[in-house]
Amino acid sequence: MKIVVDGMGGDNAPHSTVEGVVSAINEFGVDIIITGDKALLSEAFNKYSFDKSKLEIINTTEVIENEDKPVKAIRSKKDSSMVVGINLVKQAKADAIVSAGNTGALLAGGLFILGRIEGVDRPALCSYMPTKNGMSILLDAGANSDCKPRNLLEFGIMGSIYANKVLEIDNPKVAIVNVGIEEGKGNELSKKSYELLKNSNVNFIGNVEARDIPFGYTDVIVCDGFTGNVVLKLTEGVAMSIFSMLKETFNMNLKTKLGAALVKDHLRKMKDMLDYTEYGGAPLLGVNGPVIKAHGSSNGKAIKNAIKQAIRFINGNVLDEIKLTINSMEDDIIENS
Amino acid sequence: MKIVVDGMGGDNAPHSTVEGVVSAINEFGVDIIITGDKALLSEAFNKYSFDKSKLEIINTTEVIENEDKPVKAIRSKKDSSMVVGINLVKQAKADAIVSAGNTGALLAGGLFILGRIEGVDRPALCSYMPTKNGMSILLDAGANSDCKPRNLLEFGIMGSIYANKVLEIDNPKVAIVNVGIEEGKGNELSKKSYELLKNSNVNFIGNVEARDIPFGYTDVIVCDGFTGNVVLKLTEGVAMSIFSMLKETFNMNLKTKLGAALVKDHLRKMKDMLDYTEYGGAPLLGVNGPVIKAHGSSNGKAIKNAIKQAIRFINGNVLDEIKLTINSMEDDIIENS
Repeated sequence: MKIVVDGMGGDNAPHSTVEGVVSAINEFGVDIIITGDKALLSEAFNKYSFDKSKLEIINTTEVIENEDKPVKAIRSKKDSSMVVGINLVKQAKADAIVSAGNTGALLAGGLFILGRIEGVDRPALCSYMPTKNGMSILLDAGANSDCKPRNLLEFGIMGSIYANKVLEIDNPKVAIVNVGIEEGKGNELSKKSYELLKNSNVNFIGNVEARDIPFGYTDVIVCDGFTGNVVLKLTEGVAMSIFSMLKETFNMNLKTKLGAALVKDHLRKMKDMLDYTEYGGAPLLGVNGPVIKAHGSSNGKAIKNAIKQAIRFINGNVLDEIKLTINSMEDDIIENS
Repeated sequence: MKIVVDGMGGDNAPHSTVEGVVSAINEFGVDIIITGDKALLSEAFNKYSFDKSKLEIINTTEVIENEDKPVKAIRSKKDSSMVVGINLVKQAKADAIVSAGNTGALLAGGLFILGRIEGVDRPALCSYMPTKNGMSILLDAGANSDCKPRNLLEFGIMGSIYANKVLEIDNPKVAIVNVGIEEGKGNELSKKSYELLKNSNVNFIGNVEARDIPFGYTDVIVCDGFTGNVVLKLTEGVAMSIFSMLKETFNMNLKTKLGAALVKDHLRKMKDMLDYTEYGGAPLLGVNGPVIKAHGSSNGKAIKNAIKQAIRFINGNVLDEIKLTINSMEDDIIENS
């Protein structure tokens, strides 16, 4: 097994990326190809001890920046660390790619270079949602702003397979984000998607109200990419605003400062539970190759966990499972949605 | 000025409703009509002292329950406290209605009994969002699951007028919930609504990402009712889950319990900032009469604040302002959206 890591993508590249790659080699014994500025990368790797035979550095001369327009970047920066990396998966020289770079570009690259799995209408970005109960996965997290009911059905199927094979959840519970739990609630999309999922083979438990999402009663949450993006970013925003208010409260006076000192350690543990770095990256599901998007501000641990996810993705034959299930779906379900 | 209050709507009716009505009479000197079971209400009012000449109790024999189907309830329960109340506004025997009852029924009642303001395609429920910075208003909070761009334009106009006249915000800032701040981001609805709002007379500041909503940089947030409902309920859910984790953290051991005791008062103040009861109710904007939906679990203070809102709604001539602005809009904007 060989995993290619985009050495130049992400806010903390290449240092955090290099750190994560070294940890992954040491902990998982996996073979890594890293793409990027060879001189820069070699220097960064120099300070670590690890089995050098496990690492190959491929020199690339371009970098896709966060500000770059995704499709244009993928088409014009042919020698970027990201495009070269995706091409290695396409050419079967690597089994998966991990990148913390420009999300839109990685989605576009996955779509244009690797292509869609036959039968999948819209690949989706599948994101981890830390919850009070552990975590859920949510898709689509933002790849498709406008969706058809058929897409939500596919998201449910792909998310289910991923949750089972990578997260090792038995018979994962799938729900649609909606404004009420009863069937018949919601907008046109959620009503029609409900019908499709109810008649599918996934373990569909119905609608989940946004209020219940943070409590983690559901394993796989499906919605269009617009709603998904709102859910993810709002969760982050509300948590950030409350923690910032807490900080101000704790700094109010001597008494509150003392109080804060007494709960500090436990509070940090609680904050860690909500920390994305524990959970690695977001897979792009529905393209012909494992693509894992690590958070843009990933530290070494987050990169290592994203590589671990890629390993499980490969070992779980997630791609084959998706192909098999999508192809076994009755054509009339698809035609009518 | 006379305000009708639905005496039987809400989880804590009639006691909290009666308490709120008494406070409103005492503090604002307003005339109130309350609808409901006269015997029950009279008994509840008996324990308070206030100017009895300010209160009229109208006996009604039916109650719309939370479980009732909205449209059916409005059509069949003609002698319910809610329907009788709305009819009083329709007949100009009251200037506004406040109800903590079934939200869907109140929306349906407003729409069917009072009717839409001429030129308004879709009335919207306008909800308060407590933020780190005070608060924003959000519309549509759930009256219209599927929206057209024209609707978001109307929400921006109506929200702007409400923020100005009732909340006394000068030149309120209006933004669309979106997945990125740049023009051209988002789904079909948000892209087309952006165009319309950009060319309107409201103080349109562009898109707001969900992550920034809890920080309160915007006065008026517009989106379709599906997204609005998700934003409101998720905000509540994330806050609830974090406070519940905090509580567990504080109860961990003696040390954390001591810490909690030291910050308790300040923490309560922080929680109060996020408390809906401070902000009264949600107006239904776009119907021919002031309709204020108080939270279902309103206490006396929340009812009193909802009545205060109704007073400001009337004094600010919000209805006339909406009529005037909507009618002055160029027809071609509307036709093409």
